[in-house]
Amino acid sequence: MRTIDWDDIGGGRIVIVDQTLLPWSLQLLELATVDELVEAVKRLAVRGAPALGAAGVLGVALAARLAPDDPAHVRAEAARIRSARPTAVNLAWGVDRALGRLDKGPAAVLAEARAVLDADVARNETLARRGAAWLRAQADPPLRLLTHCNTGALACVDWGTALGVVRALHEDDAVARVYVDETRPLLQGARLTTWELGRLGVDHRLLVDAAAPSVVARRLVDAVVVGADRVTANGDVVNKIGTYPLALACARTGLPFVVAAPESTLDRATASGADVEIESRDPAEVLSWGGADTAPPGTDALNPAFDVTGADLVTAIVTEDRVIHPAAGERPDAPT
Amino acid sequence: MRTIDWDDIGGGRIVIVDQTLLPWSLQLLELATVDELVEAVKRLAVRGAPALGAAGVLGVALAARLAPDDPAHVRAEAARIRSARPTAVNLAWGVDRALGRLDKGPAAVLAEARAVLDADVARNETLARRGAAWLRAQADPPLRLLTHCNTGALACVDWGTALGVVRALHEDDAVARVYVDETRPLLQGARLTTWELGRLGVDHRLLVDAAAPSVVARRLVDAVVVGADRVTANGDVVNKIGTYPLALACARTGLPFVVAAPESTLDRATASGADVEIESRDPAEVLSWGGADTAPPGTDALNPAFDVTGADLVTAIVTEDRVIHPAAGERPDAPT
Repeated sequence: MRTIDWDDIGGGRIVIVDQTLLPWSLQLLELATVDELVEAVKRLAVRGAPALGAAGVLGVALAARLAPDDPAHVRAEAARIRSARPTAVNLAWGVDRALGRLDKGPAAVLAEARAVLDADVARNETLARRGAAWLRAQADPPLRLLTHCNTGALACVDWGTALGVVRALHEDDAVARVYVDETRPLLQGARLTTWELGRLGVDHRLLVDAAAPSVVARRLVDAVVVGADRVTANGDVVNKIGTYPLALACARTGLPFVVAAPESTLDRATASGADVEIESRDPAEVLSWGGADTAPPGTDALNPAFDVTGADLVTAIVTEDRVIHPAAGERPDAPT
Repeated sequence: MRTIDWDDIGGGRIVIVDQTLLPWSLQLLELATVDELVEAVKRLAVRGAPALGAAGVLGVALAARLAPDDPAHVRAEAARIRSARPTAVNLAWGVDRALGRLDKGPAAVLAEARAVLDADVARNETLARRGAAWLRAQADPPLRLLTHCNTGALACVDWGTALGVVRALHEDDAVARVYVDETRPLLQGARLTTWELGRLGVDHRLLVDAAAPSVVARRLVDAVVVGADRVTANGDVVNKIGTYPLALACARTGLPFVVAAPESTLDRATASGADVEIESRDPAEVLSWGGADTAPPGTDALNPAFDVTGADLVTAIVTEDRVIHPAAGERPDAPT
């Protein structure tokens, strides 16, 4: 099952797994209009950098199907899709990939979209197997791993990044257990990663985020494996809030801190993490869960979405093409 | 208002603020039997190291009142109280203080309990003012601080430890803002510390625990101030899960990591944090909040209550008697 795909039924529409309903309900959502897609992106029914790339290219393919003789309208629709999440670089990338084929007609745009999806799956599987091989060289399987947020198939078209590495190891019976950070405030780890690991049949334990660094310090794990939202030219890693303390604990304990991310995550134009603006999200996300308040009425919160992990704390960055060792002085932007 | 106290009504009972109902309801709970006290300690209706010391001494006073002619029974009850939370050294300390007067009769035990409570209030105020003075010597006020869990009056009889330091600074207009970790799974920071800071009139912002280390790294604070559940002979600090990543971030960023704790928290009999057994609490605490599940049915969780922060990461331990600098090589158990 792909997290996001094209379905030819009824002339063609986009089908996604509605991630806002997981893990309580596995529901597919058919998106037959650009309005429906934009709304799904905005309310995070589809999320994760690679999945958003797929949403961008599929969205333009859908717009082209609905207005085959009006490229100007399709371009206007593409602009709307792009601005559904302005900070998501992969969404814009997907839109641009599709627009590059618009002059060849709707069928060409759809073919491009299918190619993007197939390439995403192949790329992540390659990345996952490379990461699995690297980890098996560090410690004797079966491995005990810790991960943060959701980096599985749900964040991509299939396979995932850090959780793809877990899946590749699990296929070889090389995983003993995965510790999963709940990932407050939106609990992507508690809701989504546990669900994916359960389906894969991987033994796992949920942790509050605050417990993860000491689980590393107590050597209950052999390595930490996370994804990345952005890797800067020097190897600093921008990822979900709560990644940085895991890297600090690994560095102090002498355990590998591994980032699994496709080459498209590398931002050569940004020198270091200090140059990245950290998005602050709505304080309301922190102030309640499931309709129950967590703090007294009127409390204000600071809700940064990402943190920056210095390159010197990053043992390895695994991509579909290579393994980079920033803590050992390797730069991801070095000529290969 | 004291968080825990003795009330002579009905022959005498313990009165506590029920902390499981805060901040939504300020409710006093009367504990007329040892069973009721043990249950209140176990479900964290009374919590915090100094408050648990008070609970220990008051609990034995209550047992002595209920069985004035049966010291053997009182000793058995004392053992039950002590084991209500085995990791809490203050609880055992309070029990032992009371048992030391048992041969003098129930009235002597109660007098000892009252003296312990009065001394706790005076001790914490002294500690708070010492900590405030130490912090003002590190950075120019008004200070921006970060704290974890609840270490305020609610954790003690009055004043508190780390939050007592904040209160002492605030009385001199020396606090700009306090960042408060929500402190999953039980949200003592979100529920209790925000409530206390609001009552004191201190500007504050709530954070998810995973965000705190990067708030330190971004230098949005001048120092981190926390309490301690236990300090071992070498200066290792055992405290609420999520303390260790704060100390890691302070050490890397070069900011003070300060522990405010009474001398009674010092456990000279335990060489280091490696010798402390870490209590694992009920996984159910992690798996829901306010009646709403956070994870798929059947998910298992690891729920450690404490972590260990190595002495080399601790800039200062402030007690009612002194300031110890473990990161500079000072040992709390050294002869003074």
